[in-house]
Amino acid sequence: MSVLPKSVKQVIEEFSKLPGVGPKSASRMTYHYLRSPNMDASKLANALLSMESNVKNCTKCFNVSEDDECVICSSPLRKKNKICIVEEPLDVVAFEDSGVYDGVYFVLGGVISPSEGVGADELRFAELRKRVEELLQEEDVLEIIIATNPSLEGEATSSYVIDLFKNLVKGGKIRITRLAMGLPTGADLEYADRLTLKKALEGRRDI
Amino acid sequence: MSVLPKSVKQVIEEFSKLPGVGPKSASRMTYHYLRSPNMDASKLANALLSMESNVKNCTKCFNVSEDDECVICSSPLRKKNKICIVEEPLDVVAFEDSGVYDGVYFVLGGVISPSEGVGADELRFAELRKRVEELLQEEDVLEIIIATNPSLEGEATSSYVIDLFKNLVKGGKIRITRLAMGLPTGADLEYADRLTLKKALEGRRDI
Repeated sequence: MSVLPKSVKQVIEEFSKLPGVGPKSASRMTYHYLRSPNMDASKLANALLSMESNVKNCTKCFNVSEDDECVICSSPLRKKNKICIVEEPLDVVAFEDSGVYDGVYFVLGGVISPSEGVGADELRFAELRKRVEELLQEEDVLEIIIATNPSLEGEATSSYVIDLFKNLVKGGKIRITRLAMGLPTGADLEYADRLTLKKALEGRRDI
Repeated sequence: MSVLPKSVKQVIEEFSKLPGVGPKSASRMTYHYLRSPNMDASKLANALLSMESNVKNCTKCFNVSEDDECVICSSPLRKKNKICIVEEPLDVVAFEDSGVYDGVYFVLGGVISPSEGVGADELRFAELRKRVEELLQEEDVLEIIIATNPSLEGEATSSYVIDLFKNLVKGGKIRITRLAMGLPTGADLEYADRLTLKKALEGRRDI
C-alpha cells in the first residue's frame, strides 16, 4: 500500500468502508478503474453525486424517491387500507420484486437496538403515527403489517409498534399483523435452528 | 428494482460492473450511502474523480503514479540492475508489501491471451524493450525477472519476453530469470494440483 499514489489510496479507503468490502476487494475494485480506459470511474462518481443530490425520502412513507411522493404512495393502484412497516428501503424493493403486496409502506429507518445506541427516538415512530392517522381519515379500517426482520431487534421494534397503536386496536380501527415466521422454502429441517423450528411449530396451520 | 429512483438504479448498475460485485452486493453498497448521513457518497465520488485526473502511468515502468516517475523509479535506493516484469500494478504492491525486492519494475499491462483477444500488440513490449536498452546504458549486466502469474497466459507471456531478449542473452548482457514455482508456504501436499507438484519436483534443490 505504501507505494500507491495518495489518490489511489483514498479510493481504496472509501471502498473499504462499504459493507462486505475488505481491503483486498477494495484494491481490486480500485484497480479495475485504473485498468479500464473508458472513464468508468467518473461514471460511478457522477452517478453517486447525482444520487446524492436527487434522492430524498418520500414525505409519506420515507422510502427513497426523486419526487416528494414515491411511485408507490402516488400510485392510485395501491390500496391505502394496508400499511407495511419495514426497516429499510431495500425491504421495500424485496416486497416489490416479489410482487406479492399491493398496499403502501412505511420505512422506519432501522430497528431499536440498545447495543448500537439506536433508541425509539432515532426511528420514525412520530411520523408513523401521523401517517396512520392520515390513512384513517380515508379508510375505515387499517391493517398495519409489521415486517421488521425476525431478529431480536426486529422483535423489540415490533413490540414498540404494537404498543404505539394499542388504543386504536381496541377501538377496532386498526388490525395489526406480523409476517409469518417458520421454515423458508427449500429449507432443510435437519439444519433449521431451534427458534425457527419453535416458530414453525407455534404457527402451524390446519390443512 | 423497478420501484427504485433512476439515480439509485444508476449507482447500483455502476457498482455491479466492479469485479466480484453481484447485483445484491451492489444494492447493499448503494443503500449504505442512502443511509449514511455524512455525505460518504460524495467522498467516494470525489476520490474517484481525483484519482482519475491525477493518476497516470510512470513513464519508465508504467506503474500507477501521480508524478511522471513513480516513487520506485525515482528512488536512488532502488537497484537498476534488476527489472521485475509484472502484469498489473497490483503485483507491484504485492512485492512492495512483502519487502523482498530492491530493484525496479516494469508493468506489462496484462498477459497475452488469445481467448480474450489480447495479443502481443496490446501489451507494452516495445516500451519494455526501450526501458531495457535504457537501463543497459547505465548497467553492464541486467537481470530481467519474469514475474507473470503461473497461468497458461502468464507462461505464454513469459516465453514472449524470453524471445524478445534472446540476442541480448547470447551477448551476455542480460540474464533472464523466472519466479520459482512450487508449493506455497502452508500448502498441503495432499491437495496440491498435478502441475504444482510437477513444478515443485522439477525445481527441487539440494539442501
